[in-house]
Amino acid sequence: MSPVALPSQPTAVLYGPKDLRLEHRTLWPPQSGQAQVAVLATGLCGSDLHYYLHGRNGDFALQAPLVLGHEAAGVVTAVGPGVKGLVVGTRVAIEAGIMCNKCSYCKSGRYNLCKDMRFCSSAKTFPHLDGTLQTFMNHPAHLLHPLPANCSFEDGALAEPLSVLLHAARRAQLAKGQTVLVFGVGAIGLLACSLAQSTGAARVVAIDINQSRLDFAKTNGFASDTFCLPMADKAKTSDEALRRAKESIQAALLKFGEPDGFDVVFECTGAEPCIQMSVHAAIAGGKVMLIGMGARNLVLPLSSAALREVDIQGSFRYANTYPTALGLLSKGSLGPVRKLVTHRFRLEESAKAFELLARGRDDEGRMVLKVVIGNDAP
Amino acid sequence: MSPVALPSQPTAVLYGPKDLRLEHRTLWPPQSGQAQVAVLATGLCGSDLHYYLHGRNGDFALQAPLVLGHEAAGVVTAVGPGVKGLVVGTRVAIEAGIMCNKCSYCKSGRYNLCKDMRFCSSAKTFPHLDGTLQTFMNHPAHLLHPLPANCSFEDGALAEPLSVLLHAARRAQLAKGQTVLVFGVGAIGLLACSLAQSTGAARVVAIDINQSRLDFAKTNGFASDTFCLPMADKAKTSDEALRRAKESIQAALLKFGEPDGFDVVFECTGAEPCIQMSVHAAIAGGKVMLIGMGARNLVLPLSSAALREVDIQGSFRYANTYPTALGLLSKGSLGPVRKLVTHRFRLEESAKAFELLARGRDDEGRMVLKVVIGNDAP
Amino acid sequence: MSPVALPSQPTAVLYGPKDLRLEHRTLWPPQSGQAQVAVLATGLCGSDLHYYLHGRNGDFALQAPLVLGHEAAGVVTAVGPGVKGLVVGTRVAIEAGIMCNKCSYCKSGRYNLCKDMRFCSSAKTFPHLDGTLQTFMNHPAHLLHPLPANCSFEDGALAEPLSVLLHAARRAQLAKGQTVLVFGVGAIGLLACSLAQSTGAARVVAIDINQSRLDFAKTNGFASDTFCLPMADKAKTSDEALRRAKESIQAALLKFGEPDGFDVVFECTGAEPCIQMSVHAAIAGGKVMLIGMGARNLVLPLSSAALREVDIQGSFRYANTYPTALGLLSKGSLGPVRKLVTHRFRLEESAKAFELLARGRDDEGRMVLKVVIGNDAP
Amino acid sequence: MSPVALPSQPTAVLYGPKDLRLEHRTLWPPQSGQAQVAVLATGLCGSDLHYYLHGRNGDFALQAPLVLGHEAAGVVTAVGPGVKGLVVGTRVAIEAGIMCNKCSYCKSGRYNLCKDMRFCSSAKTFPHLDGTLQTFMNHPAHLLHPLPANCSFEDGALAEPLSVLLHAARRAQLAKGQTVLVFGVGAIGLLACSLAQSTGAARVVAIDINQSRLDFAKTNGFASDTFCLPMADKAKTSDEALRRAKESIQAALLKFGEPDGFDVVFECTGAEPCIQMSVHAAIAGGKVMLIGMGARNLVLPLSSAALREVDIQGSFRYANTYPTALGLLSKGSLGPVRKLVTHRFRLEESAKAFELLARGRDDEGRMVLKVVIGNDAP
Repeated sequence: MSPVALPSQPTAVLYGPKDLRLEHRTLWPPQSGQAQVAVLATGLCGSDLHYYLHGRNGDFALQAPLVLGHEAAGVVTAVGPGVKGLVVGTRVAIEAGIMCNKCSYCKSGRYNLCKDMRFCSSAKTFPHLDGTLQTFMNHPAHLLHPLPANCSFEDGALAEPLSVLLHAARRAQLAKGQTVLVFGVGAIGLLACSLAQSTGAARVVAIDINQSRLDFAKTNGFASDTFCLPMADKAKTSDEALRRAKESIQAALLKFGEPDGFDVVFECTGAEPCIQMSVHAAIAGGKVMLIGMGARNLVLPLSSAALREVDIQGSFRYANTYPTALGLLSKGSLGPVRKLVTHRFRLEESAKAFELLARGRDDEGRMVLKVVIGNDAP
Repeated sequence: MSPVALPSQPTAVLYGPKDLRLEHRTLWPPQSGQAQVAVLATGLCGSDLHYYLHGRNGDFALQAPLVLGHEAAGVVTAVGPGVKGLVVGTRVAIEAGIMCNKCSYCKSGRYNLCKDMRFCSSAKTFPHLDGTLQTFMNHPAHLLHPLPANCSFEDGALAEPLSVLLHAARRAQLAKGQTVLVFGVGAIGLLACSLAQSTGAARVVAIDINQSRLDFAKTNGFASDTFCLPMADKAKTSDEALRRAKESIQAALLKFGEPDGFDVVFECTGAEPCIQMSVHAAIAGGKVMLIGMGARNLVLPLSSAALREVDIQGSFRYANTYPTALGLLSKGSLGPVRKLVTHRFRLEESAKAFELLARGRDDEGRMVLKVVIGNDAP
Repeated sequence: MSPVALPSQPTAVLYGPKDLRLEHRTLWPPQSGQAQVAVLATGLCGSDLHYYLHGRNGDFALQAPLVLGHEAAGVVTAVGPGVKGLVVGTRVAIEAGIMCNKCSYCKSGRYNLCKDMRFCSSAKTFPHLDGTLQTFMNHPAHLLHPLPANCSFEDGALAEPLSVLLHAARRAQLAKGQTVLVFGVGAIGLLACSLAQSTGAARVVAIDINQSRLDFAKTNGFASDTFCLPMADKAKTSDEALRRAKESIQAALLKFGEPDGFDVVFECTGAEPCIQMSVHAAIAGGKVMLIGMGARNLVLPLSSAALREVDIQGSFRYANTYPTALGLLSKGSLGPVRKLVTHRFRLEESAKAFELLARGRDDEGRMVLKVVIGNDAP
Repeated sequence: MSPVALPSQPTAVLYGPKDLRLEHRTLWPPQSGQAQVAVLATGLCGSDLHYYLHGRNGDFALQAPLVLGHEAAGVVTAVGPGVKGLVVGTRVAIEAGIMCNKCSYCKSGRYNLCKDMRFCSSAKTFPHLDGTLQTFMNHPAHLLHPLPANCSFEDGALAEPLSVLLHAARRAQLAKGQTVLVFGVGAIGLLACSLAQSTGAARVVAIDINQSRLDFAKTNGFASDTFCLPMADKAKTSDEALRRAKESIQAALLKFGEPDGFDVVFECTGAEPCIQMSVHAAIAGGKVMLIGMGARNLVLPLSSAALREVDIQGSFRYANTYPTALGLLSKGSLGPVRKLVTHRFRLEESAKAFELLARGRDDEGRMVLKVVIGNDAP
């Protein structure tokens, strides 16, 4: 139990674009309120990939070497002073963001908006807070959530992207009996479908430009209906683009038998035409929930939203979601979400894992959804 | 009390752009569930003005002669069969929209979104439902709201635009202790200020391009602080326009001592730069409530909203607001809102009233806020 | 389609306690806004049974012969003037309460609280509105909800008690990840369990005094854990009763591993000791939802609720639930709820059906949960 | 700035019932995250009085000498390591409860329910956390809320009881246009009236058994109408008591012209008959908010609440209220709440202050509402 027995540990450290190095770092004992966790599974996220490929994610560039990874689970190997109710050997999911606990956001239950949050694997704050692509890490004990007995470490890692959707669904007040449309069925979009199904949606329809993704969604019961958006020539003007987006989604709505639109639209692509279509795809009084983010600025048919009381909402990370996410995974309420993990690598193969994620298809032509680094036997 | 004694009545009917005619129309007795009201005050609204000037309002063009006016109050002069609890002589505010009572919106309390709503003075449905610029009108009794003893007919007319704000404030979950920013201080923006004050806002700040409006807002206590936006040359590109909007509002936020932004932003201008500024002016986790509508499509810094969980919401008319609106007017909780009525005309002067409203200043150079048609002695 | 072909129809009419007569009544054509429905399934409810046994239900006594039944479905056989969007042959669930559409409750989405509601089979209003134990009935078309293709008429009848739970669950803000305790696993309690499971409850625990009901609940997956309350001698004082209730539930909470209590407690027995236990069984910040009603007045450990912010709520019927209820039944999200229908009778056997329901066990010793009258082949 | 200059300080310490001693205690320097505050005003609360008179408050008895007081404000005299954004000289209101920041309640914004909360002047936790009847105290900096410039230290002390009401009002979803009934117009009940008025209540009615309190409430505009409950002989049975309570409140409702009841009822007495009346006084769909707590168990007309969807709620302390409370005091939105402070004493007169509070009237016969200890010149 003594961290003295663990003098150094392998860690995957990003030094710049595509410059990922395996290093041995000193393992410090956990401080007051912290526990030490042997990280056994880390899912790779789009933001990790951005850092890997470009050395930055949106506005946030590396200012120092950074360990990536924030969808993770492991086993508690030591606890620091003052930690109660968490013992060595406990299997835990790691909630990656450390909030300040003092600001008005933290006190009112919206700690995801805490301006002083330090988030593992993000270059937003400096010094950066390292992520989970380490063999061991120290983390506040109150952010380690015990895994239910029937949850694997990969399940614990999935609790992170699932948390993103749980939070978004709460904000959108997703409820039983609603009709739900999902733009984009990558890992996040599939989780959106899955959560909508488990909430008791009247129906869940998915739209993508990739037929094989849609086939996966339909075959596995994520969506009841799917629609493959045709790729068109680029519009010459933004008015032309808007007109096309409107016509395209209106045709799709008719095809689905939902001419008035859907109660909740989860936009998981970040693509401008899809965001435009989202507005027209929402029913009067409905919601557009923006999960995928792309361009900073874009043209929006805003009056169509405003005059029909379609709320346009975004969601940023999550708050108070882990216990619920783990509970849903444990009960099996989410359908075949474990199929989202399509590829697995060991920590020393991290660079290879990122390269595969960037390609999107493996050598056998199989679709890449979620790549997990770790030695968890599923 | 018998409508037989009222065989015809003067009515202001719009035949086309600027073609407003005073006619004498047959006065029918009220039908089952209806009451007959002698209309004694009608406030003129921006949508009325659009119809008057252009023969259309947005997408909705006159298909037949139409009586304008939907901010109104009067006295019950007769009741039709089956009407209970409403007697001749009752002073009432007239809620102008007749909902279907059968659709899911009506049944769930959001009747403002009813697709079959027939709204007085709107050309959206056909045959059009005539508005309140009549001497008498028949209307469903359950949409006539008794005026408190200390409310004038003009107060009853004000209950309509106030309802717009009450509804918007409910949707934005306006609460005590919030900071509120209002773009545009015409009649609607002033009511937004007033409602925010009466809700217990920590502070209410107003922005406009018109200094005299801002002076009015400040002098009368509608806003605690004001900011006059400088008029700039038109930007050459949308990126340039966005950059300017962002810089302009950030400077204003610093000036107000609110660098993080406001909890709720009421956008009452419909102008693209103001809508863009609204997004940057809202604090993380805050709301942008769009009340003024302008261009159908516009460029929006959407990721700044989404990543900070700033909800972009519109509001359309109102539901279940009249009793509360009248109660607030009765209690005097809204400050000097009666000052919003700056000019008064008789029914036969309706065209003159519209012309004044279009000009925005009277011959003495006084600002025009709300013009009321009627013979109510305030 | 002409009702002229249906001059009379068999109807089960209650004249007084246990005085249920099969009569032939004239079948009137549907009036404006109504449709005529051939009733094909009616579930019997506890309130029906009270009327049958005692000629009254709580405060409401028969003032004239009354047709019972309000959990029903059938086929549209004719439509009256002005009915749109509903055609002969449509299979529908019948929402039994006719609201006024004019009061503040109706307009704000809480029509279940409408004081002028006329509810089929209830003696609360006079003249009474007859229930569904008829061969045909006329009913407002907007209260007839089309059955999804895969829903039987019995499913349509189940949509009524399910609506009771949906409404209660909405009021209690039942959410994913919550722990749920249900007192009493008759038909209503089982539906509470089922709905909690389908909402993604972390766990659902059931308490009853009847081991065979609990076995049914556990075997069929309604509850993950169950607890059979021992029957004790009647307490001599109310203090003694309160002390026992507290000790009894605290022991049960420990046994369940939930010493702090459950997030939501559905009380479906109406028994005083269970209501007392409910308060102690709810976690700080949780909810007690009272569904079963018994004694008018009772002793309550109120400060234990108030100081821990445990809300004590009741729910009365339902509003805006039918489409969602039918959707859940159609999707099969509710587990084996069809097993709730344990016994079936034809209309002319109605008295026999009530007698069986009163006994609670059939001649073979099988438990009676829900009895359905009709000729629907499941 | 050095606390070395403050080696000891006068403190009022309670050793047992009526055994309040003025001691000189060592003044420690503030620890990490703490600030030191010179306490300049402390309002005395009913719970303080219970400790003073009985050495206990409900279930919680003194286990060691305890400093009372938790409604307080003062000036920052030193800050400990790591404190940002708070400087010496800042005038602050002191939020008295220190939450754990790690449990699910703290993380989800309901920190008032934190089981590990340590609350100044409460004997619930041990070692007890001393209250504010000290000359100086050290307290977490994030629980010190800067006073607006126009707020006195007494205002800062009032922010505590006001917080109780703000929290209760939020839980009861108090909204504009509602009718509000308040049982009991001591300091807490008057604040309930005041908050309801400032929220835009349609009307605020107060009930008490004390005519002079009611006169104070009416004269100062806290309530628009009042009703003095007659004192009756004690009922012989609980049924008799319930019947009387029902008849009594129904007569009052008729007198007020609110036969259907009030939207929100604030019960601030804790007396069983008033709690019973509260249920009957709430309109269908309304709320009973229990603020005063008395007997642990009582007889309640529960079915009348449940069947009419009257929610029975309690509220415990407050969360996230201080900035809003101070803002309301600063803006003067609450009417003449400063009149609540009827008597003032210096720290060394604390025992005398408690004795006066216990008597309820001073030697001149003036009503005692709120007693403040301190040297704040109002």
